[in-house]
Amino acid sequence: MTADSAPAAGGAPLFGRIAFIGIGLIGSSLARLVAEQGLAGSTVCTASDPQHLAEAAELGLTTETAPTIAQAVAGADLVIVATPVGAYEAVGAAMGPHLKPGAIVTDVGSVKQATVRDLGPFIPEGVHFVPGHPIAGTEHSGPRAGFADLFRDRWCILTPPPATDPAAVDKVAALWKAGGSMIEIMDPGHHDRVLAITSHLPHLIAYTIVGTATDLEEHLKQEVIKFSASGFRDFTRIAASDPVMWRDVFLNNREAVLEIIQRFTEDLTALQRAIRWGEGDKLEDLFTRTRTIRRAIIDARQA
Amino acid sequence: MTADSAPAAGGAPLFGRIAFIGIGLIGSSLARLVAEQGLAGSTVCTASDPQHLAEAAELGLTTETAPTIAQAVAGADLVIVATPVGAYEAVGAAMGPHLKPGAIVTDVGSVKQATVRDLGPFIPEGVHFVPGHPIAGTEHSGPRAGFADLFRDRWCILTPPPATDPAAVDKVAALWKAGGSMIEIMDPGHHDRVLAITSHLPHLIAYTIVGTATDLEEHLKQEVIKFSASGFRDFTRIAASDPVMWRDVFLNNREAVLEIIQRFTEDLTALQRAIRWGEGDKLEDLFTRTRTIRRAIIDARQA
Repeated sequence: MTADSAPAAGGAPLFGRIAFIGIGLIGSSLARLVAEQGLAGSTVCTASDPQHLAEAAELGLTTETAPTIAQAVAGADLVIVATPVGAYEAVGAAMGPHLKPGAIVTDVGSVKQATVRDLGPFIPEGVHFVPGHPIAGTEHSGPRAGFADLFRDRWCILTPPPATDPAAVDKVAALWKAGGSMIEIMDPGHHDRVLAITSHLPHLIAYTIVGTATDLEEHLKQEVIKFSASGFRDFTRIAASDPVMWRDVFLNNREAVLEIIQRFTEDLTALQRAIRWGEGDKLEDLFTRTRTIRRAIIDARQA
Repeated sequence: MTADSAPAAGGAPLFGRIAFIGIGLIGSSLARLVAEQGLAGSTVCTASDPQHLAEAAELGLTTETAPTIAQAVAGADLVIVATPVGAYEAVGAAMGPHLKPGAIVTDVGSVKQATVRDLGPFIPEGVHFVPGHPIAGTEHSGPRAGFADLFRDRWCILTPPPATDPAAVDKVAALWKAGGSMIEIMDPGHHDRVLAITSHLPHLIAYTIVGTATDLEEHLKQEVIKFSASGFRDFTRIAASDPVMWRDVFLNNREAVLEIIQRFTEDLTALQRAIRWGEGDKLEDLFTRTRTIRRAIIDARQA
């Protein structure tokens, strides 16, 4: 399914007031987008990290900053939760009682079943809940790392519960479309399974391989750095991503991640065996097949 | 150790005649470099793939093309072996009897013990042997994929046997320096161990993870392609590298690759266990440590 409404061109902004809970890479990119395109009458952000909040104020990312979640969400028409997923339960408890009737709550977290589990119970009757996940990012983090164009030509997955008001889904979709994103509506469990493959496993593997190198004797480590252009450096970029965010992803998508690690390990063991026994045909066959998926990604303009 | 001579500026070219055996990504990049900078009086190439040879002629990559290795190396002052490593023994047998006394033989293969093992026995007395490995490349292959600037600001590792004439090493080093490379002299065994970590393991892991995705049910595979921007696509780029070249790398650096796979698998198993048992501290600790190696690579200007 694809939601189809476009953002309001001219006239009233898309939202009266938007509150950002968390203002890191994704939150600050969205805040820049909202400011640049005038998508809200006013904006406010709060963050548990005082430095993030100070930087957000200094950079003028939102109209105002608020010291607490309760103050930030009061009167907001759209609340965007953009903290690490591990904080969601506390965020939910802090904001729930202060949400305005008719408001929409969304998020940008990389796992979606946990979003439903941890934020869902705190969303009162009469408030709309449209969890989301932009498939975009960089290895940088914090309010300074964001930029309004981060979401252009990328997918944003929305996972609204079945009974959600379609008008609320459309409004959240319109926000992302204003940033140049394409929208996909998905079941949270399916999202978590797909992302375990496309995102969580690649990050885990990158963290592992860079960790393996980090544990080498010092002189060998220096050479690994020196000659990293031969493949290793691409993994270090991925493995430089935000540690807390990624810790929370793995803790909150455990089953899907463990299942795909299992498949990966089987496949690696088979390759290891082919190398040990000198089975060149098996290696060449796999290495040839993997080229076709690269071609498909280039054709899908996601390269 | 670092070799220190600079290429001849003006005056006679560095080499009278250069022969390229194999004219793929690396060979054709070097040929373009030699042509652009006038580093040879004349050049010739041969290739076992008739299409490569035809493309090389069409693109004018060398002064001449030759149908056989024997004809290509006859009269050459520098012979550059740029085929997959698996072909080295046959290449050595074909060129050995036709090498000019005083000529230099070098190569660009990604493993260096196998180079010494497979080419070494065919190098006659009075011919210099300076194996080399430029730490540069792209996921593209073939004569059309090359470009003269491929080696700029990258390292080139040379692994001459201990008794090699330093003047021959300096001449090969001068060729790479003309392309903007930095030179490192290394023992072949040490080279293979370092590259197993920085290059061979990353490629194997990328091939594995992309292979794991290739084996998914069709509808899931389509979604993996669609949402690949979340990490997966970086692996597909690496896993699009030349299949035959990489088959030969793994078959010819077996011990070092198997050893580093073992370390990697242990580390992955530890992470898998931490995820299963919800040990967030262990995850966050590793994910924080891996950031520092990225910083070191950026500082070394190899990012």
